[in-house]
Amino acid sequence: MFDLGRIAIVLVETSSPGNLGSVARVMKNMGLKRLILVDCQADLTEETRQRARGAHDLLEKAVRTNGLASALKSFHLSVATGSRPARWFERSLRPREMAAELKALTPGDQVAIVFGPERTGLTNEHLQYCHWQVKIPTAPAFPSLNLAHAVAILAYELSQGLSESPSKEGRELAELGQIEAFSQDLEECLKEIQFLKKQNPREIMMTLRQMLARAALDDRDIRILRGILRQWKWYSRANTHPGRDGG
Amino acid sequence: MFDLGRIAIVLVETSSPGNLGSVARVMKNMGLKRLILVDCQADLTEETRQRARGAHDLLEKAVRTNGLASALKSFHLSVATGSRPARWFERSLRPREMAAELKALTPGDQVAIVFGPERTGLTNEHLQYCHWQVKIPTAPAFPSLNLAHAVAILAYELSQGLSESPSKEGRELAELGQIEAFSQDLEECLKEIQFLKKQNPREIMMTLRQMLARAALDDRDIRILRGILRQWKWYSRANTHPGRDGG
Repeated sequence: MFDLGRIAIVLVETSSPGNLGSVARVMKNMGLKRLILVDCQADLTEETRQRARGAHDLLEKAVRTNGLASALKSFHLSVATGSRPARWFERSLRPREMAAELKALTPGDQVAIVFGPERTGLTNEHLQYCHWQVKIPTAPAFPSLNLAHAVAILAYELSQGLSESPSKEGRELAELGQIEAFSQDLEECLKEIQFLKKQNPREIMMTLRQMLARAALDDRDIRILRGILRQWKWYSRANTHPGRDGG
Repeated sequence: MFDLGRIAIVLVETSSPGNLGSVARVMKNMGLKRLILVDCQADLTEETRQRARGAHDLLEKAVRTNGLASALKSFHLSVATGSRPARWFERSLRPREMAAELKALTPGDQVAIVFGPERTGLTNEHLQYCHWQVKIPTAPAFPSLNLAHAVAILAYELSQGLSESPSKEGRELAELGQIEAFSQDLEECLKEIQFLKKQNPREIMMTLRQMLARAALDDRDIRILRGILRQWKWYSRANTHPGRDGG
């Protein structure tokens, strides 16, 4: 199985204390643990702590380096984030393609995903150390993603499909016999209130049966629906009884 | 082609000015434009503006409402974000499944994606207005996503593969406002026959609302259901009238 422990998030010259916290939080949400801060320009402030919300440990354990080259020394592959022309790179991928490619790597390969400074993104100087590029598709008129949002989307893609098959915890549907019994009760009531007289009764009942089918009723639903009809009959008899209503 | 203009992001009782800005920014990055603020607890501050980074227009154009019900009136489908047990919902989906399902809806259907307050998420009160649920998979030990990160991930999934062709030819669903009006009529009738006295009324109504949501009602369905209640009221009055029943 693919192991997220092989992936490190590398932040280059991050300048916003809030972004540091925010990145740590979403990394921890998505099961990523390795954070490397290259030439970090931001202090760990109160805002960092607030935005990290319980993921401050990732920041405390983060590896700090001077220069991207030394940060990447022990990795087998580095992926630049951003939107430089693709010709700079061996491969230019969308997030989902990147996730699929990384999962196909040899187990044991260490992968760095590299994020540039907030204002400029990765410079040419940085890019010479990156093999692949990943581009998050955005609206052309407003392409600049927040650093933590970019991490969130890539971390989400990487964590996808790791444990596959979540199994929809399914509801147990009621037996068809129960639904049919309710439909018949309902039909009887609708005749009694003279609803089915007015219009095409068969067509109306068919439409109601289709609604019930789509509603995917379980046992409790059916009990409630039958309870309503029972109560309605009780109420209807109680209130039409001459002894009570007699003028 | 699928049109992101059909999707609104609905933020319920957001309390952080920074989150407002952050959500606006990533919405604009991903091509989403419709923002609805329900009972917003946050002012638009300098921090909002900084975090919005050029997407402040989305906040200025945001629709503000009191109460989730009125926010959702003109929508055909609402999707709750969070991680409640799946049995509460017609469908519980992963982000990618949700995106695929939404793209298969009838063109013209309006969809609301609903995000709860930062601290609590959506409450039971809110959930009764939601049909589907979308769960963003997270590390079990650290599941609480930042609001803007959740928006980022879902907006990213929605904006993915937009040019892929949809679409099942579907039924045109009734507007939520119509379904809500029927639910209220129904509740009134159930009170009258004293059904709602006996058991937990809120829970019963929630279950009935969920059945209605699952039934994917169209305009004709709603007309029939409302017709039944109208006819029942007529019948009920006619038969309890002393002049007719007098003994």
